[in-house]
Amino acid sequence: MPNAKELSSGAAEAFVATLGGVYEKSPWVAERAYERGPFDSLAALATAMKQAVTEATEAEQLVLLLAHPDLAGKAALAGELTSESTEEQARAGLGSLTPEEMERFTRMNEAYKTKFGFPYILAVRNASKAVILSAFESRLPNSRSAELAEALAQVHKIAWMRLRTIVTPNPTGFLTCHVLDTARGMPAGPGMRIQLRRLDESTGTWSTLGQFVTNSDGRLDGGPALKGEAFTFGTYEWTFGVGAYFASTGFPIAGTPFLDDVPLRFGIDDPEAHYHVPLLCSPWSYSTYRGS
Amino acid sequence: MPNAKELSSGAAEAFVATLGGVYEKSPWVAERAYERGPFDSLAALATAMKQAVTEATEAEQLVLLLAHPDLAGKAALAGELTSESTEEQARAGLGSLTPEEMERFTRMNEAYKTKFGFPYILAVRNASKAVILSAFESRLPNSRSAELAEALAQVHKIAWMRLRTIVTPNPTGFLTCHVLDTARGMPAGPGMRIQLRRLDESTGTWSTLGQFVTNSDGRLDGGPALKGEAFTFGTYEWTFGVGAYFASTGFPIAGTPFLDDVPLRFGIDDPEAHYHVPLLCSPWSYSTYRGS
Amino acid sequence: MPNAKELSSGAAEAFVATLGGVYEKSPWVAERAYERGPFDSLAALATAMKQAVTEATEAEQLVLLLAHPDLAGKAALAGELTSESTEEQARAGLGSLTPEEMERFTRMNEAYKTKFGFPYILAVRNASKAVILSAFESRLPNSRSAELAEALAQVHKIAWMRLRTIVTPNPTGFLTCHVLDTARGMPAGPGMRIQLRRLDESTGTWSTLGQFVTNSDGRLDGGPALKGEAFTFGTYEWTFGVGAYFASTGFPIAGTPFLDDVPLRFGIDDPEAHYHVPLLCSPWSYSTYRGS
Amino acid sequence: MPNAKELSSGAAEAFVATLGGVYEKSPWVAERAYERGPFDSLAALATAMKQAVTEATEAEQLVLLLAHPDLAGKAALAGELTSESTEEQARAGLGSLTPEEMERFTRMNEAYKTKFGFPYILAVRNASKAVILSAFESRLPNSRSAELAEALAQVHKIAWMRLRTIVTPNPTGFLTCHVLDTARGMPAGPGMRIQLRRLDESTGTWSTLGQFVTNSDGRLDGGPALKGEAFTFGTYEWTFGVGAYFASTGFPIAGTPFLDDVPLRFGIDDPEAHYHVPLLCSPWSYSTYRGS
Repeated sequence: MPNAKELSSGAAEAFVATLGGVYEKSPWVAERAYERGPFDSLAALATAMKQAVTEATEAEQLVLLLAHPDLAGKAALAGELTSESTEEQARAGLGSLTPEEMERFTRMNEAYKTKFGFPYILAVRNASKAVILSAFESRLPNSRSAELAEALAQVHKIAWMRLRTIVTPNPTGFLTCHVLDTARGMPAGPGMRIQLRRLDESTGTWSTLGQFVTNSDGRLDGGPALKGEAFTFGTYEWTFGVGAYFASTGFPIAGTPFLDDVPLRFGIDDPEAHYHVPLLCSPWSYSTYRGS
Repeated sequence: MPNAKELSSGAAEAFVATLGGVYEKSPWVAERAYERGPFDSLAALATAMKQAVTEATEAEQLVLLLAHPDLAGKAALAGELTSESTEEQARAGLGSLTPEEMERFTRMNEAYKTKFGFPYILAVRNASKAVILSAFESRLPNSRSAELAEALAQVHKIAWMRLRTIVTPNPTGFLTCHVLDTARGMPAGPGMRIQLRRLDESTGTWSTLGQFVTNSDGRLDGGPALKGEAFTFGTYEWTFGVGAYFASTGFPIAGTPFLDDVPLRFGIDDPEAHYHVPLLCSPWSYSTYRGS
Repeated sequence: MPNAKELSSGAAEAFVATLGGVYEKSPWVAERAYERGPFDSLAALATAMKQAVTEATEAEQLVLLLAHPDLAGKAALAGELTSESTEEQARAGLGSLTPEEMERFTRMNEAYKTKFGFPYILAVRNASKAVILSAFESRLPNSRSAELAEALAQVHKIAWMRLRTIVTPNPTGFLTCHVLDTARGMPAGPGMRIQLRRLDESTGTWSTLGQFVTNSDGRLDGGPALKGEAFTFGTYEWTFGVGAYFASTGFPIAGTPFLDDVPLRFGIDDPEAHYHVPLLCSPWSYSTYRGS
Repeated sequence: MPNAKELSSGAAEAFVATLGGVYEKSPWVAERAYERGPFDSLAALATAMKQAVTEATEAEQLVLLLAHPDLAGKAALAGELTSESTEEQARAGLGSLTPEEMERFTRMNEAYKTKFGFPYILAVRNASKAVILSAFESRLPNSRSAELAEALAQVHKIAWMRLRTIVTPNPTGFLTCHVLDTARGMPAGPGMRIQLRRLDESTGTWSTLGQFVTNSDGRLDGGPALKGEAFTFGTYEWTFGVGAYFASTGFPIAGTPFLDDVPLRFGIDDPEAHYHVPLLCSPWSYSTYRGS
């Protein structure tokens, strides 16, 4: 898989051949993005493609939206979807609708197109039928301008998810951690045990990537917990030994601790970025956030 | 299994026969607690037993502490522990120490007893060797008064864990939930899906107790998620469909959401109490706490 | 000041005469909203007016946007603004720009109008020059549809702030509080002292509205801290006696506590709504949020 | 004012003359601490003095406790307190008790001494009468060992507060900040305005120490917000321009924002330490903690 630098330094034809389908049936997006290159990173490439759409005329944007199939619509029935759309819709369970569900989706698509003039678009890769229907209901009352903006945002999200399966990211991303003890106002360390696992989406099983112990600043010795090529998009989980930590420091905790092993599941979307995923914890509360 | 009311309304002999071992080899605790009865709840009974110890003389408290075996000590080797202590130490992995570990525990116990005049006591049911050693190191520099207080606190915790396996709690405890959307300043509902599971400690597997959906106030319809006899001490886990919720409301989230299914694992220590275990979440952060 | 019910139950002429300026120079919004009445609340009235705009044609929406003056623009110089706009711009400090600032605002407005075809609109009542310029820079690269949606959102916000100075809200709003002790996993009470104050915007001084003490559930006895006609939009502040609370419970805190009196300042935007503004605190951390 | 290094490198007599009153009427604590010197920092000196008490015999510890006057007791009435105790009790408002309050304090002290054999000790410098009485009620039911440990902890706190008015700290402490935007999962910057002020305790007024603006990582350029000799123990307050920040980024916020200027008041207890005091905020929630 080429990286952004290689792709964007080569010929325009190869660039467009590779990336022409990132925006549904709209190779002009890749063509215009190429003019802005070359690009040093997957993120820069994605931004340039997005900008090409943002700066297109509204007529061109509408053509792009209209290139998208109905969700679970006639094109799907007829087997006429692009391979990207087919896989995305299948993953959302749209390949196996009951006749009643199919009819509901059809009515929904028609109502939306009638009101706004373009199809209902949602990045469905990780969505369920319930999410698709619920989002539809919250979006239908919007003004056309709001919905046009939202449709374009969904299209960019779809493009991003396609792009990162085609272009190798730079190995600049990494994962760090920090644990604070909010009951005592100090780093949770040394000695809290932490495990890092990754979800294998094809099998639904978790594999262990590392075992760590906090140092006296509540951080992990030895640098990032994950970096380079091992740092890929996907679903990860820390497990923090919060109960054992507080027990070993003599802080009063219950017989069955309210917090013992604390799982913290998070997704990596951008493999070129830094993800700081800390834990703030007392024996009775915790919080986390994407930090920096 | 009798409840507190039944036990404490009956004869003193039966009461002491049943509860005499809750405080290690110290039936006098049960005898004195009985005088304060009868008790309406497991909690009231536990409090009375604790109070009997607190109000005993320091000499009596020392006798109580001295009744406890060394952790992994000679009594264990000789098979002379009470059955309660044997099981508790075994669960902590103290039944299978290497000779080196055994020697380290022995040295540790000796150092502690020499300094303070009573054995090193730790409620070990859910502790690991690492926790036991680490707690030992943080406690050894304490003053004698601090350590005497800590040892009594550990003894009360051990007693509580024994007590709730002997006495049936009142079915007054229950579990509630509430989900707030901190990105938009409103209840996270209607429509966020929540699952509740319980850990079977003997098999290590999780069984599903219920599937819920938040209402427009971010709460669960139909009252507590768990109550009555089903509400037992142990380890539980909520799973919140945070990613699907934000996707369905149209809030911008990443292609691979930072937060998708959010697991929240917690322990129930007191089956007669109300546990409110809420979630405050944005697409990029969340927190929880034991509420009321 | 009439309430929504009185206004919307009366004649259309009076309704439009009163509310015709809520959307800048666009009495048609009030006219169409009237058809949907009568309304039981300020919130219902505001929603109906917003809906009238959302369901208007894009051409009508553009006319509405074009009715707005440039921020700090020629109309302001010529004294031709509506009285509402004059006051709003003055409050943001736009009445006293230096020649350099005036030129910068003019260039900004021109660039925006040239790109999007309508003026740059921002609800400026509480904005500073820096905010106005900074928002301009973040919005200029947007697509036209995104910016059209954003401009309408700003117009709705301006309308809401005008509306609530014209129409009396129902006295349904109220303010509640709850304090949790996250270091010990229990309500922070009884006994934490709390003060509630309100900012007088004309003088910049704070007046005390009430003194409270938490009960054993960490809540205030006697119902809401504020309700009815006293519950108006504006700026409020709780002060929580966190340091004294932890000192009185014997929890270890520093000589100079990290948290002593904790101020928590918040705004009430909707006087018909319930605002639950809780505090979760340990001696070393706290958090708050708009709850429900 | 000498620093720890100077004091502890000099003669024992001068050391004890200076620090003999840090532990009430117990110069032996300074004498024994001196043997462990010299000390590089105020913190090391405080630790050594504390350790001298911890390692003293229980008889010596009791003599130390008995050297403390009753809170608001006979010694105070007779003007026989040490100057340190007089000032500390006066600051807590114990110099102006009504006869009823005086009687209540007297009864309280007697009950405590009768039960435990030593006076009720509380670090009162920042305590109110209510805190003193409330802490008394929560402590009276304790076991003697718990209360002995607590009394020693209070004595160490009193000593620490005395010590830092006698010994100059090293200029190693500093204050840092970080602001995260939890609604968008990114640093809150560039451009959030932050003010830092310090409370002048003698006048009750606040003086501004600095004005800052976050950079693109949500931190302050130019290093610590405060450091060196300016970093003294006392009460500080950040004010974060949260409302203006979200308005300038185009994030939807209310007409009257729920969070506009967010004050965050905190105490510096140890002038040799690093205080990291961050803000995590969305337009509807925020949290803070002592970080590292």
